[in-house]
Amino acid sequence: MSDPTRIVILGGGFAGAYAARELLRRSRGRVEVHLVNRENYLVFQPMLPEVISGSVGIADTTTPIRRFIPGVRLHVRDVESVDLVNRRVICSPGFRPRPLILPFDHLVIALGNVTDFRGQTGLAEHAMPFKTHGDALALRNHVIRVLEEAESERDGELRTRLLTFVVAGGGFSGVEVIAELHDFVRRAARSYPSIRRDACRFVLLHSRERILPEVDESLALYAQNLLRRRGVEIMLGARLAAATADHALLADGSRLATATLVATVPSHPNPLCESLDVPKDRGRIVVDSFLRVQGAANLWALGDCALVPLPGADESGESRYAPPTAQHAIREARLAAANILASIESGTLTPFEFKGLGSLCALGHRKGVAQVMGLKLAGLPAWFLWRTVYWSKLPGVQAKVRVGLSWLVDLFFPPDIVQLRLGRSSGINHEHFEPGQTVFEQGDLGDRVYVIIRGTAAVERFNEAAGCADVIAQLGAGQYFGEMALLHRAPRSATVRCLDAMDVLSIERGDFSSLIAHLGQLRDQFQDTARRRLDTLRQEQDGR
Amino acid sequence: MSDPTRIVILGGGFAGAYAARELLRRSRGRVEVHLVNRENYLVFQPMLPEVISGSVGIADTTTPIRRFIPGVRLHVRDVESVDLVNRRVICSPGFRPRPLILPFDHLVIALGNVTDFRGQTGLAEHAMPFKTHGDALALRNHVIRVLEEAESERDGELRTRLLTFVVAGGGFSGVEVIAELHDFVRRAARSYPSIRRDACRFVLLHSRERILPEVDESLALYAQNLLRRRGVEIMLGARLAAATADHALLADGSRLATATLVATVPSHPNPLCESLDVPKDRGRIVVDSFLRVQGAANLWALGDCALVPLPGADESGESRYAPPTAQHAIREARLAAANILASIESGTLTPFEFKGLGSLCALGHRKGVAQVMGLKLAGLPAWFLWRTVYWSKLPGVQAKVRVGLSWLVDLFFPPDIVQLRLGRSSGINHEHFEPGQTVFEQGDLGDRVYVIIRGTAAVERFNEAAGCADVIAQLGAGQYFGEMALLHRAPRSATVRCLDAMDVLSIERGDFSSLIAHLGQLRDQFQDTARRRLDTLRQEQDGR
Repeated sequence: MSDPTRIVILGGGFAGAYAARELLRRSRGRVEVHLVNRENYLVFQPMLPEVISGSVGIADTTTPIRRFIPGVRLHVRDVESVDLVNRRVICSPGFRPRPLILPFDHLVIALGNVTDFRGQTGLAEHAMPFKTHGDALALRNHVIRVLEEAESERDGELRTRLLTFVVAGGGFSGVEVIAELHDFVRRAARSYPSIRRDACRFVLLHSRERILPEVDESLALYAQNLLRRRGVEIMLGARLAAATADHALLADGSRLATATLVATVPSHPNPLCESLDVPKDRGRIVVDSFLRVQGAANLWALGDCALVPLPGADESGESRYAPPTAQHAIREARLAAANILASIESGTLTPFEFKGLGSLCALGHRKGVAQVMGLKLAGLPAWFLWRTVYWSKLPGVQAKVRVGLSWLVDLFFPPDIVQLRLGRSSGINHEHFEPGQTVFEQGDLGDRVYVIIRGTAAVERFNEAAGCADVIAQLGAGQYFGEMALLHRAPRSATVRCLDAMDVLSIERGDFSSLIAHLGQLRDQFQDTARRRLDTLRQEQDGR
Repeated sequence: MSDPTRIVILGGGFAGAYAARELLRRSRGRVEVHLVNRENYLVFQPMLPEVISGSVGIADTTTPIRRFIPGVRLHVRDVESVDLVNRRVICSPGFRPRPLILPFDHLVIALGNVTDFRGQTGLAEHAMPFKTHGDALALRNHVIRVLEEAESERDGELRTRLLTFVVAGGGFSGVEVIAELHDFVRRAARSYPSIRRDACRFVLLHSRERILPEVDESLALYAQNLLRRRGVEIMLGARLAAATADHALLADGSRLATATLVATVPSHPNPLCESLDVPKDRGRIVVDSFLRVQGAANLWALGDCALVPLPGADESGESRYAPPTAQHAIREARLAAANILASIESGTLTPFEFKGLGSLCALGHRKGVAQVMGLKLAGLPAWFLWRTVYWSKLPGVQAKVRVGLSWLVDLFFPPDIVQLRLGRSSGINHEHFEPGQTVFEQGDLGDRVYVIIRGTAAVERFNEAAGCADVIAQLGAGQYFGEMALLHRAPRSATVRCLDAMDVLSIERGDFSSLIAHLGQLRDQFQDTARRRLDTLRQEQDGR
């Protein structure tokens, strides 16, 4: 007996997971299916916004891939590269630093979209994406932290910033996120006696003239009015241009002071697709109607990373392509599985054809909009349809039971406001500052060291005699500041203000201490600078 | 009207949280209660081991402090220092780098115990503590990761190591952890077809001659036999001495190859207590029978960080002190609240008196041991008592409902094996290696740079002509290695082996790139070394 055909699937989203499941179901052991995914679970994207408010439990929207696809060979790894010539996939190492190499007979590329903030100033550093389960958890924790901070904070300006929540992008994802954020913050605020409900501000930024381009205008207007009546500000024709830790900056030059900026817009095909030597169009892999990569016999692509042609043409006579939705991904997955098996057994391939079932968008408070098979629904019926449809689509009985129970509990209890610690984030971060912004002020606690990557900063010290601040130094790329407070365990001896847009690398106290304790030359360098700066400081003080 | 009395409580465990609640209940607005805690929730410690297996949900054992103690002023901060002279507590900064300062009239110290691995070689780096909710989540995720890795791994030795689970400490906590680990891994393994149940090894290390010193010998022996029958190895008289990433090292010189080492033993009073200028005995704060810190009128201490005297003497005539259990902490909290209010109103203080209710220990599989009011129970009745008692003690109705539903769901479904990503951990770590251990091997992927803190390493390269490895360099403290593979994006050009015990700082690829990209001198230093090493390498190859 010959070895079974090896099929390697990259990506465990709807497209990849359903393809694997269908292959194993249909083939009955004639193929070996390997699935490479960063997580060991499939996340049910449509319910991700509900994780924010906790109306479904933290893990309710996830299904273990091993349980969902019995018999699959799952590898919880990143894909490092694909060697199309030698037909093998190189995956990241696990416990030991050796790559995992997976040879394949057929390769299915289902890597999906990723959030990509490249080219958008400060977004990678200060905006929160909303794509993965981890993103949803991080946002939930961040919002609870913001409420805790606002409750203790006396500074009015900072309080306003903490209680302003901005979401960029008025598509389904952005609308559902702002609706959930609004509901959650309003309900949770009852546990924070000093936070008045009307002190919380919710802003949805959308670059076009109406939100929800996915549905008819009447439904979009219904959603707009509903959200506005609840107190959500919808800024139309507003494009997010940049971000700092304190502000969202719009393309028209205006700025919104906020500590919570969620950006749902920038979705790009997985960067790994870029590196693959296959035909692409606007980043997406070009496939034929059988989902086969153009010009290849054993390469298949589907889901959001593929440009899947649909039969016919649109009104303007252009070719039509499948939109990046779960319903399309699942149907593509089923067809790809059938076609792969057909190609192995020299059968006939079937072209992809699917009209789409419609769109559902939850607006919170038991309201929604739906456009299903020509029918338009708004309000409670749409919300009910949303819950029914998505609940029935939840993969696995266990997920259905858990979500059902969570919804039940949510009817009777206030939302959970437990802020889970999700491990310490890295001690080395990139940060972006806009001209005029203060990095820290004289007298602040010293908790980080900053290395300037780009831009200029002025170091100012308050001159008590003159009653104003003196600029004592100007720093540029490659220079650093903030080391004195850390080396001498003292408050900041000066204020640092940006003269133009500035990007920095900031190193947290603990990591900085570890580094300079053991890297001799680095320590010498920082100590020399600190000594020189201290001398200048002393001379100055003596001079007065 | 005068300002209300300000009471500041440090620590939101059972002691601190119940003291705050009782103060607010009894005082009816006459006092202002501030609670400082690192988390915004109270964690129900007795059910923490169940978080490992997911038989209770991830957040089920937590209760938001604001909900549990209506009216409390909660500050989610670390305590940086306490200024007893000026009566104020300095807390860590929040969103902006300024400390929060809380003046107090009365201070309640309820900081509890912390895990303290100081002085134990390699434990801080490689053993997992089990004390906080975060610890429990981290352990759960680690175990799922280990199963995923073992499933993909072909190397037999590494598989054995991955499937060996070691818990150090045979008290309640250690016994409950090994029992839960055993049940969870055995049940979860069904989803990993290549992992045979009998390939998993579970070891409990205990330094004395029997486990569970908290209960009678007969119950301890029952527990020992039960766990052994299930396949848990109990090593008595075995003390954990050190740890590396791959091994647990025992005091007798033997070693256990394991990727999962949980250490439940080292509990010490919070380091902040050390820094306080109050009388202490073995690290615990000395209080009188009214829970007042010796010699102070407005300082109170309770819970695990305090040495609370009990009336009478033990068999050998020594003074008796309250043990560090939740039942004592809660009663101390109620008394402290009453005494603080009495002292404000010049009332009479009441001494602490409590005999203890007994002990309960769950052993998994619906078995347990219990010693309650003179009664000894083992097996199902003890387990049933455990569930009933602890369920009824869960703070809040919501927690009771959630735990009840989770237990119900757990009856019908296999355990959840979703490995939640809890944020990237820091890119700069400390690691410990034992003599003879390999840090990495020639040909491995380069994912980290290492800086030697202590110890010596040999750099070896395989000599194809001679068919064996040549030692090409020896490195000591302050020197680093591993930079070449990162700078040149190549596999490791040599093997590094430790000659004696070695501690290193390891910097992950991404952080290393950020640092050398922007810190000029650091880049120069690493590039110089890499160039020199590359030259040596080339000369050597030319010479052959």
